[in-house]
Amino acid sequence: MNLDPQAQFELDPRLNRDTVFVANWKLCQVRLMDDARFPWLVLVPRRAGAVELDDLDEDDRTRLMHEIQRAMKTLRGVADCDKLNVGALGNVVRQLHVHVVARRKDDPAWPGPVWGHGPAQHYLPAARDKLVADLRRDG
Amino acid sequence: MNLDPQAQFELDPRLNRDTVFVANWKLCQVRLMDDARFPWLVLVPRRAGAVELDDLDEDDRTRLMHEIQRAMKTLRGVADCDKLNVGALGNVVRQLHVHVVARRKDDPAWPGPVWGHGPAQHYLPAARDKLVADLRRDG
Repeated sequence: MNLDPQAQFELDPRLNRDTVFVANWKLCQVRLMDDARFPWLVLVPRRAGAVELDDLDEDDRTRLMHEIQRAMKTLRGVADCDKLNVGALGNVVRQLHVHVVARRKDDPAWPGPVWGHGPAQHYLPAARDKLVADLRRDG
Repeated sequence: MNLDPQAQFELDPRLNRDTVFVANWKLCQVRLMDDARFPWLVLVPRRAGAVELDDLDEDDRTRLMHEIQRAMKTLRGVADCDKLNVGALGNVVRQLHVHVVARRKDDPAWPGPVWGHGPAQHYLPAARDKLVADLRRDG
């Protein structure tokens, strides 16, 4: 697949609905999944048309790995966790995006995956805003 | 986490039981999940003690991203697929391993994740051996 470097990056409407903006890093737009059950970041490479990891060129793939690591560190700063889960699925939303999720042995989906595990439980607005502020400070 | 470079890499017994050996690449041991429902590779970095992606140093992380991309290409060579899923979960088996799974819209778990989706359906030995040979040739 050849990405068109002139095409404008636009966030998928479903990702936009399910998540809130945290920050723009060098490659990715970083967003928080609006699901209070799991501290969960979504990294969306700002490359129009990217669907699979290897739609990114080699420099961007290296950058993505770096930003995944940064997201892991950021999540550890705001949440106790027993494990981090990282995944690029894209079966529902095709726009390339990477999930980085802090998991605990007492979370409702453990040890299964978070994807497809029942409906999201939205944050209360004040809690969400505080978490986003913490993520911005730590990230 | 500091990995001990002198420690010997040993494959987790459960990974060993659920998968079959395909090849050793520069960083990872590449294995086929013995589940005929999904063409599914598991990449296991040969670094003793690694659990999270960022237990690897930066060079190894870049190498891992490269080997993930190589696994995607290898799977495309042996299976028709609509999407590739890539994930590092580790909730059950803690040893760091990355799943690369070829998905089809008519596979039994679509569009959900493959992890935790019922029991594996093992390959018939002849089919498994042929697939492993094809993966070795293409990979």
